[in-house]
Amino acid sequence: MTSESSCCHNGDDRGGSSGLPAPEQRPLGSILPEEIRQVNPTETPTTSFLLRAQFAPGTAFAFRVISLVEPRKSELKPHLEALRRGLGRPDTPFPARITFAHYYVGGPKDFYRAYVDVSGKSPKLIVNEKLDAKRHAISDPAEMMRAEKACLNDPLIVEQIRQLSLPSGSQVMIDPWTYATDEKLDVEKRTLICYFYLKGNASEVDANHYAYPLDFYCHFDMVNLKVVKLFRLPKKDFEHEVEIKQNEAQSAAAAPWGTVSLDRQNEYHPDLRSGPKKIPTPLRVVQPDGPSFRITGNVVEWMGWKFHVGFNYREGMTLHNITLDGRNTFYRLALSEMFVPYADPRAPYHRKAAFDLGSNGAGVCANNLALGCDCLGLIKYFDAHLTDINGNPRVMKNVICCHEVDDGLLWKHLNFRTQKAALVRSRTLVLQSIITVSNYEYILAFIFDTAGAIHYEVRATGIVSTVPIEQGVKSSAHGTVVADGAMAPYHQHFFNLRIDPAIDGHENSVVVEETVPLPINEGNPQGIGYHVKQQVIQKEGFADIDPLKNRVFKIINPSSRNPVNDKPVAYAVVPFSSQLILANPNSFHARRSEFALHSMWFTKYHDDELYASGEWTNQSAGDEGILTWIKGRDEEIDNGDVVVWHTFGTTHNPRVEDWPVMPVEKLQVTLKPVNFFPRNPAIDLPMSTQKDNDSKLYSRM
Amino acid sequence: MTSESSCCHNGDDRGGSSGLPAPEQRPLGSILPEEIRQVNPTETPTTSFLLRAQFAPGTAFAFRVISLVEPRKSELKPHLEALRRGLGRPDTPFPARITFAHYYVGGPKDFYRAYVDVSGKSPKLIVNEKLDAKRHAISDPAEMMRAEKACLNDPLIVEQIRQLSLPSGSQVMIDPWTYATDEKLDVEKRTLICYFYLKGNASEVDANHYAYPLDFYCHFDMVNLKVVKLFRLPKKDFEHEVEIKQNEAQSAAAAPWGTVSLDRQNEYHPDLRSGPKKIPTPLRVVQPDGPSFRITGNVVEWMGWKFHVGFNYREGMTLHNITLDGRNTFYRLALSEMFVPYADPRAPYHRKAAFDLGSNGAGVCANNLALGCDCLGLIKYFDAHLTDINGNPRVMKNVICCHEVDDGLLWKHLNFRTQKAALVRSRTLVLQSIITVSNYEYILAFIFDTAGAIHYEVRATGIVSTVPIEQGVKSSAHGTVVADGAMAPYHQHFFNLRIDPAIDGHENSVVVEETVPLPINEGNPQGIGYHVKQQVIQKEGFADIDPLKNRVFKIINPSSRNPVNDKPVAYAVVPFSSQLILANPNSFHARRSEFALHSMWFTKYHDDELYASGEWTNQSAGDEGILTWIKGRDEEIDNGDVVVWHTFGTTHNPRVEDWPVMPVEKLQVTLKPVNFFPRNPAIDLPMSTQKDNDSKLYSRM
Repeated sequence: MTSESSCCHNGDDRGGSSGLPAPEQRPLGSILPEEIRQVNPTETPTTSFLLRAQFAPGTAFAFRVISLVEPRKSELKPHLEALRRGLGRPDTPFPARITFAHYYVGGPKDFYRAYVDVSGKSPKLIVNEKLDAKRHAISDPAEMMRAEKACLNDPLIVEQIRQLSLPSGSQVMIDPWTYATDEKLDVEKRTLICYFYLKGNASEVDANHYAYPLDFYCHFDMVNLKVVKLFRLPKKDFEHEVEIKQNEAQSAAAAPWGTVSLDRQNEYHPDLRSGPKKIPTPLRVVQPDGPSFRITGNVVEWMGWKFHVGFNYREGMTLHNITLDGRNTFYRLALSEMFVPYADPRAPYHRKAAFDLGSNGAGVCANNLALGCDCLGLIKYFDAHLTDINGNPRVMKNVICCHEVDDGLLWKHLNFRTQKAALVRSRTLVLQSIITVSNYEYILAFIFDTAGAIHYEVRATGIVSTVPIEQGVKSSAHGTVVADGAMAPYHQHFFNLRIDPAIDGHENSVVVEETVPLPINEGNPQGIGYHVKQQVIQKEGFADIDPLKNRVFKIINPSSRNPVNDKPVAYAVVPFSSQLILANPNSFHARRSEFALHSMWFTKYHDDELYASGEWTNQSAGDEGILTWIKGRDEEIDNGDVVVWHTFGTTHNPRVEDWPVMPVEKLQVTLKPVNFFPRNPAIDLPMSTQKDNDSKLYSRM
Repeated sequence: MTSESSCCHNGDDRGGSSGLPAPEQRPLGSILPEEIRQVNPTETPTTSFLLRAQFAPGTAFAFRVISLVEPRKSELKPHLEALRRGLGRPDTPFPARITFAHYYVGGPKDFYRAYVDVSGKSPKLIVNEKLDAKRHAISDPAEMMRAEKACLNDPLIVEQIRQLSLPSGSQVMIDPWTYATDEKLDVEKRTLICYFYLKGNASEVDANHYAYPLDFYCHFDMVNLKVVKLFRLPKKDFEHEVEIKQNEAQSAAAAPWGTVSLDRQNEYHPDLRSGPKKIPTPLRVVQPDGPSFRITGNVVEWMGWKFHVGFNYREGMTLHNITLDGRNTFYRLALSEMFVPYADPRAPYHRKAAFDLGSNGAGVCANNLALGCDCLGLIKYFDAHLTDINGNPRVMKNVICCHEVDDGLLWKHLNFRTQKAALVRSRTLVLQSIITVSNYEYILAFIFDTAGAIHYEVRATGIVSTVPIEQGVKSSAHGTVVADGAMAPYHQHFFNLRIDPAIDGHENSVVVEETVPLPINEGNPQGIGYHVKQQVIQKEGFADIDPLKNRVFKIINPSSRNPVNDKPVAYAVVPFSSQLILANPNSFHARRSEFALHSMWFTKYHDDELYASGEWTNQSAGDEGILTWIKGRDEEIDNGDVVVWHTFGTTHNPRVEDWPVMPVEKLQVTLKPVNFFPRNPAIDLPMSTQKDNDSKLYSRM
């Protein structure tokens, strides 16, 4: 490996003259543009080209996904081990590069999934299958905008809007939502739910239309691009939706827009506000000698850590083959799923339930980060490639940023006898990705520290989703009034972090610990003793957090012992303590999410189990996720290839302070070494000094 | 108020020619050196001078504390209100400046407490009382060092050490601990427990003696400065202490020191290690236009926040009269107590139970912070004044630092239709104090953000306390072996944050909320609805955390309503979710700490109730803290002057990674506005821009 860092394009760093990525890149490299489709006519035809060739000329295609199948762990392991030990390439062949594609043929009706081996000079189609009608591809922003345009031109909607007598210059906006089923189980036809909002001044493109929710919505047929049914939304606490029959007149109460005055306080964009009132002075992060990291292709090395950064349409950022000082720690870390069920029980709001990864894609929704905005200091950006509707590669610029952050003190001790202090600052390495799913933003980051821990941080921000409420009414049983006529309903956010450990190797066990009082007896006469109760998890299953019992979840390697105290080396999963799903376990919300029922899940590793709510979440009917898997097999996990899935989240009962845009709500999970090292791994970092840090004294400025 | 900031001395900023602090400083100013004792002979005699005058010439004095009694809230409120409204000085007189002193007369035997009115030209002694023999002053580092010196010269100890046949050049060190009582209830004589450690090379002043705990200890009489009893420490899991009779020979097993080789891996100080192995590049925080804060005396103004910074011997940093945009939020915030009970049930370890505030003093133990070490950027330091043993003022330099930190993104929204992003970074203001209590460090910080929240952060670091274990033995039922012969016992840390709210005024209520599922019925046919259950706390009491119920503790002002949604304005206390005390409720640990029994406590305000374990914790016998107060009176708190006390902590079952010095364990509590503002208070901050932030792109460096 060279000391040079690569350019910042995800797929561009290819070693040697073979046209293939360097050995370190190859088994784990993200998809390359030429694997999606040949980039110029002289190259080998690849995925979308091969798939088009399977159908008659003139067939309409809508590609949704072209991505890479990750190698089987059994094939990849010998390569990673050889690299880790510095042995170069092992005897076994490189795992094949296999792409997969999700695409529609003839409008969004016939949905196909294909697999293509793009390893060799002549890529081969392996499978090309039409899927069951209940399977639906992700819904991306492009589809949302197509739906919005078609829906606004639908005669039913045109008539409905006409009846509103909207102020001149205003504009109706649509936020389409993926379809959440109910007992009607109408899951086969691809459908979006369209909610309508008003923008007071059409020329203000960044105006916050969520301030003015209109009181009707529709089911929109994405195959035929037409409105199926139109409904009046409830505006009182104990109403439900009412279908609007064609030619039905608008009720007077529902059309107050002739008199509404647009309130600038509902705007979030600075162009539409009167300008900043509190202005902090500039604060810059300067690294005169450059960063402490070294990046070669997508391999990051920093302070003893080494790992591969991946990115795909669905999970967004993924981390692979994470070693520290040459020791295995984690095989793979990624957000596995996200679920946002709304708790307003009035129809149609039971249909608000978003799988932001499975149904939209954290990669698809990733922001193009900008220098000086999303991070401070010295920034390395990673690009990635997705596919467009025609099956061509689409560059996603700056979808991940990597930079260092000073995080205060990491350790300090002052000898009170000599008054001499020793102290080391906490430097962290942040890999951050930000996604926008319609109204909402998630800032997702892996944070490495120098004491051997990895933190996964979620910051939830963006604009809360609103529903109409009668103007002048200030309270609701189902949420918080954030502006006149706009109510932000109660909802929950669930995240599932998939932790595929390799603690000093791939044979690991999970231990659940609690700290419990000792009985009073002659060994504990004062009643002050406690001990640690350990339970090794034998089979696949789940557990919940319990901070009052100091319940700790550890991933151990029973065969690797700490030299100082002979305990098995371990990483603890320090959970984020939060509430689980409140929807009834028999509800579609709970049956569709499954992973939201418990805080921790333990499964045996299977190559194709990456997503805690199953592969297909869009319009799903439930019973396909992590609970279903383990019910069906009950495998042993002790001292085996175990995967730990941590569900955490937030019960978001909005405050008006979350309006018009929400200050971040931070959630953090930590993977923390416990007797993995022989001592504090940050003991040999340099002391913090004024010479390096060049701090300034404040005095009468 | 002027725009000039003062010099960095706590007590030096005095307005006008009267010699008194400026009006803003006066009611809340920390103690001034001339209030401790006249600084030069021409000044008015004050506290210690007046007290000395009460006794015969030649009397030996040992002053432990001279500090200020805070004004009664009823007297202070009109002044703070007048200042807040910009009305200048109110009609009522300034509250009197009253000092108090804790001091010993004739050796640490006769313990006195006195109150002196230092307001006027002629300070007056108000009370001077000899306290009950069960009351004991704090034990400060000076006393610890006196004990160490005297103990090492005690014939019993000299003989004991002689029998150890220590390597030449080595040195025996003592860590004295405050005395925790047991059923023998020997609380009247001031006693320290002395634990003995070995330092391999006496000339290495910063060597880590905690690596070599010796196997005996003693009770040390601080009145007569002599060893009372000497004991052999247990070295096996199920032993207890055994008294060592005079002239008893040392057992062979306990004296292996002739052969021990000192392991450099046990050292934390860089001078004793072979030098840094992983070196991050310099990272600097630069604020070219200065800070965003303005500091006048001890009044800090920053981004709409305004508050007074106080400091005293016991609580260390205190914050007072915190307003935001001119609105009252909190009257006073401070750490109220800290308790560290050890869980090794073997005698004498039930005596390890430290009240770091009440028995040592967070102010007394505060570090003198250094530029470029403890913080980055532009730093304002605050000094404070304590007293020395002679009753003279003692300057504590740089005990608090104040600086700004960039904390990533505060909010972001990207319009997916226009791809235009709006985003604001999170700037925070950190007030930090670091204390060293023998082996251990606590980094304590109040962190203000621009979205209306205040965070209280604790970082626990330092060296874990060790006890001897047989060499070569690697496991213990009571803790973790961290080095050969050294075991770090299980223990807990409890912090109690005292929150004295003034949410839009002083008449507040506490509401406990839980989020619970709605029953399935016609209003909730899909079973997905939930609602928020609220309970207003009527009387003094307590409650525990329950994250699985999303239990939220809110301090509301029932009379002040949010203009948007008519809800009472509120601040939520977002607790740190942690285990409570494991010691039996009837044990001395639990009876002495009381506050550690529950997560949240609610009391009616009383002027002299600042400390959750009562005023006197050193050698206390229990039944004096917050539980005892409320048992005795059961006062109404609804819509009154309520105080909320949050207990949080960590069950610290050490890892070997906590050795030889522990990476910080972070704990954070947040006070978060809920419907206090009409909208996101950070909505009108300037967008983050490259022009201000001047970030750099990483590329092939």
